[in-house]
Formats: sequence, C-alpha cells, structure tokens
Amino acid sequence: MTKTSYTHIIGTFLFKDNKIIAQKLFKNISENKQNKDKQEFGKSEMPPEFIFQRKDEFHNNFYQLNMEQTEHDLRNSVNKNNLITQTINNIDEINKTINLLSKRLREWYGLYFPELNESVSDNEAYAKLVVEKSKEQLSKELQVKSIGSDIPKKDVEQMQLLAKEITNIIRLRENEKNYLEMIMADYCPNLKEVATSTIAGELIAHTGSLEKLAEMPSSTIQLLGAEKALFRHMINKRSNCPKHGIIINHPLLANARQKDAGKIARHLAGAIAMACKVDYFHKGTKLDNSIGKKLMIKINKQIKNDKN
Amino acid sequence: MTKTSYTHIIGTFLFKDNKIIAQKLFKNISENKQNKDKQEFGKSEMPPEFIFQRKDEFHNNFYQLNMEQTEHDLRNSVNKNNLITQTINNIDEINKTINLLSKRLREWYGLYFPELNESVSDNEAYAKLVVEKSKEQLSKELQVKSIGSDIPKKDVEQMQLLAKEITNIIRLRENEKNYLEMIMADYCPNLKEVATSTIAGELIAHTGSLEKLAEMPSSTIQLLGAEKALFRHMINKRSNCPKHGIIINHPLLANARQKDAGKIARHLAGAIAMACKVDYFHKGTKLDNSIGKKLMIKINKQIKNDKN
Repeated sequence: MTKTSYTHIIGTFLFKDNKIIAQKLFKNISENKQNKDKQEFGKSEMPPEFIFQRKDEFHNNFYQLNMEQTEHDLRNSVNKNNLITQTINNIDEINKTINLLSKRLREWYGLYFPELNESVSDNEAYAKLVVEKSKEQLSKELQVKSIGSDIPKKDVEQMQLLAKEITNIIRLRENEKNYLEMIMADYCPNLKEVATSTIAGELIAHTGSLEKLAEMPSSTIQLLGAEKALFRHMINKRSNCPKHGIIINHPLLANARQKDAGKIARHLAGAIAMACKVDYFHKGTKLDNSIGKKLMIKINKQIKNDKN
Repeated sequence: MTKTSYTHIIGTFLFKDNKIIAQKLFKNISENKQNKDKQEFGKSEMPPEFIFQRKDEFHNNFYQLNMEQTEHDLRNSVNKNNLITQTINNIDEINKTINLLSKRLREWYGLYFPELNESVSDNEAYAKLVVEKSKEQLSKELQVKSIGSDIPKKDVEQMQLLAKEITNIIRLRENEKNYLEMIMADYCPNLKEVATSTIAGELIAHTGSLEKLAEMPSSTIQLLGAEKALFRHMINKRSNCPKHGIIINHPLLANARQKDAGKIARHLAGAIAMACKVDYFHKGTKLDNSIGKKLMIKINKQIKNDKN
C-alpha cells in the first residue's frame, strides 16, 4: 500500500496501511488554512470520524478547532448584501408606518380642521403644516372658513405630537436612503447608475446577493418580482406574460407609454445585467460608474430609435 | 278658520286662512333657538316649501340660515367620544408600528450582535440597549463572547438611528396613554375605575359613544368585540358561546383560571354596565370615581364568594 496524506482541521496526517506514520497538528485555524492550500498530494479515503474514534486524544482538539472555524465563518458571513437587504426592507417598512400613521393623523386632525385634508395630499407636507401652523394661519392661507370643531388646545397638542413623530420618521427614511446611496456607490456603482439605488437594492434583496444577480440572464432580471404573474401565464396561456417586475418603478418605465413598456423593460434589464456583471467580476480594478453612464446613454439611444 | 303659528328657521309666522297675517324674522340661528323654546302655541300643517314657493323673497334668507345651522351642528358634533376613539385607535396602530420596526431592528442588529436578541425579550429595553451601549459593554454585561460580525461603525450607527426612533415612538405611546387616562378621568371616571382606561376606551371606540354603551345591557357589553364567535355559535351550536370580548384584557380576567373566566366576565360586565350608566346619566351632579371604587370592591367580594 502506498502512503497517503490527509489534511484535516486539526492537522496533516500521513498514512500507511491505515496507520498514522507521521502527523503535524495545527495550533489554530489560520494555520489550517495555509496548509490546506499547500498540501494536496493525495487524499485518504478514510472519513475523519474514523480517525477520531480510534484516537480519543484528538477529540478535544477537533471540537475546539471546529467551533473556532464555525465562529470565524459566521463572523465573516455578513457582507454588504446583508446590510443592503436590511436597509431596503427597513425603508419599505418605514413607508408602511408613515402611511398608517398619516392616515390616522388626517382622520384625527380632520375633526379640528377638515379642509386641510383635501388641500394637501402629500403626507410629509401635511404633518409639517399641522406641527408648524395654527388653525388661524392655515385658514388664512387656504382662504377658507373652517367648519371643523373648536377643540381645546390640549387635545390639539396631542395631534401635533403625532404629527411631529411622523416628520421624525420621514427624516429617518431620508437618512436611510442616503445611507443606501452611499453603500451602493461603493459596492456596485454601475448597477446603481443604471437602476437607481432603490431598485438596485430591491433587486439585491430579492435575489439575496450581487453574486446571484450577476449570474442571472437579463430576461430573468426583467421579471424578478413578477414571479406570480409569470407562473399564472405559464399555467394559463390566456393571462398575459408580465413585462416587468421590480424594475417597473424605474424612472424610464414610470414615464413610458403602455405600449412601449415591454421594449424599454427589455433594454433596461439588459443594461442592469451588464452593470452587475461589471460590478461583481471587476476583481482588483478600481470601480467607478463610467460603464453605468455609458449604458444609460445607450439605452436612451435605443429607446429613441424604437420610437422613430 | 282659527289662527295658527308656524316657527321655522327663518322666523315665526302667524297664519289665518292660509295667509300670513303676522311674521317675525330671525337674524341668526341663535335667535331661532331661543324662540323655538318659547313659542309653542299651535302648529301649521303647511310644509315650509309651501310657504317659500310663494314668497321668493324668503329664499336667500332660508338658504343662508340653513347653511349656518348646518355648520353650527357640524362644529358641535365633535365630542369626547370622537377624541377617545381616535386616541385608542392611534395607540393600537403605534403598537403595530413598534412591533414591525422592532422586528427589523432585531434582525438587523442581530448581524452585529446576535446574542442580545435572546437575552432581552422586551422591545423597549432592546432598543434602549442598542442606542446606549456598545458591543463591548453588552458582551461584558451578558458575559458572552459574541459570534456576530465586526461591522464598521458607520453601518452600526444606522441601526442605532432606527433604535432611537423606536424609543421615540414608545415615548409617544406613553404620552398618548397618559392623555387617554386624563380624558377618561374627566369624562367617565367610574367606567375608567372599573374597566381600566384602555378597555374603557376600546369599549367606547367599539360602540361609538358612551351614550350607546350606557344603553346596552351587561350581557351585550360582556360580548362586545366577540361578535364573530357569537354568530358562529348561533349558527352552529357545536361551537362554544364566547365568554368575553374586549374585556378579556382586564387584569381580573387575565389572571383568572379558565373555568372561572365566565363568572368573572359576567360580574365585570355587570359592573361596567352600571358604571357607564352612572357616568352618562349623572346630569349636573359632580362626577367622581367613588361609585366605580364601590363596584370594584363588590366584584372582588363576588369572585371570592364564587371560589368558596
């Protein structure tokens, strides 16, 4: 029988006739890593459990180093993708919160000054007006004579506290959006340039990571987030195939005519696919958003050509 | 034919043979109110439209005074019941918001320091710890070696901003609860004493007003909020009749054994029915919570007797 070596988390072993004839134990996991790369001259067919059943003295060492390795892996498992996903989801939840609380504020403050509800449709502006201006000032500005009740000051103050909190939450959302822009500009500048940071973040949150997104064809990216409609179409041909998923909120699509939407979505998905491949596979080269900019110029040309 | 008088929003008219022989026009709606109470010496059978078809000169006056009356009524339609309903609903929505955002914070901060999630179950305490203490301090206090990632400071700061906002929202909830206590103590002190201000508020929000609640029998109050279960029971006798609706969150019931719940709920609903009748029909007498206190002593005695 020939000699075989087996490198394992606790050390490298040299076997002959199923017996260890030489061994080098590692002291910590980094040593293991260095050795793993070097020694690849053959492999034992014995599973590691087999070795350690017979050698009890290894067990403690094995357990401890394995724990260390796991902790090390866990510690390094968090990356930009996780942070982007958390931030995007948080922004989404903050949006829901703002809508929920604003609806309540409009109903509550409507007892006092119902005319404001119709005049101001933006939730942020509404909350700000409630906090900053009195009923008299507002009546003057809107030039209406309010039919709302004369509610005592201390009751109105309670409504204003809610409005104040809403403006705080809106400020938090702005802050998170800026933070997202910052991570994106650093992590995937070209994708951000093409898709806007919100949509880029949603794509990453939906797929799980930039890596997975970079491995997808553009046709898949085009329909990410529209899976339900796609499967409905695949089962029942009478329902239309969806044209776009998450990317529907992109400025290019939001302002497009219904009949152009499909074409624009296809161009856009192509550019996004290209941009995330550039961002993910750049390896070592310095990242900037120059390619993203070129891609945007190209899409705009394509859309113009399609129209003529 | 005899003379008849007809008092109307624009004035009092004296008729003879279907002709106006004397009239007194009101200048504003308050004058109308005063006269309504005084002059009740007979009634015309003619509808008001009949008068104003013939007398076009009254039309403008009629329109204007009617508008004034409507605005006046609208302005006075808001009462404590509306404010209580808005506050109770708002507290409910704030609860939802806190849960939503806390869940996100736990997931997000869990990337950095997962051990904190299990050690601290209270959302408020969790958010406070995230804001106030660093990972090192927390590790020392909990005596754990964290397996969380070493996330850069600027990313952690983003999580802390969210935590800060959560503590702000929690403070708002406290404030609203105090406000509710205050209105309740003023508007229905006995009901508040018996049912606690949150449950009293929910009962009023559910029925619409203290007036409606005061008109309900105690058996209805006992099941308010459990309508679905009640109707299920009425259609299908195999499903059990519910024992309690909104009042299930009352401290007396929350700590009760399952088999005592029905009896306690019945006593409690009886006391609540009594208390809101006192609060609603007090008319002029000074309101305090002495009857509520007596009722609570009585319930506690009844529960004690039932046990023996």
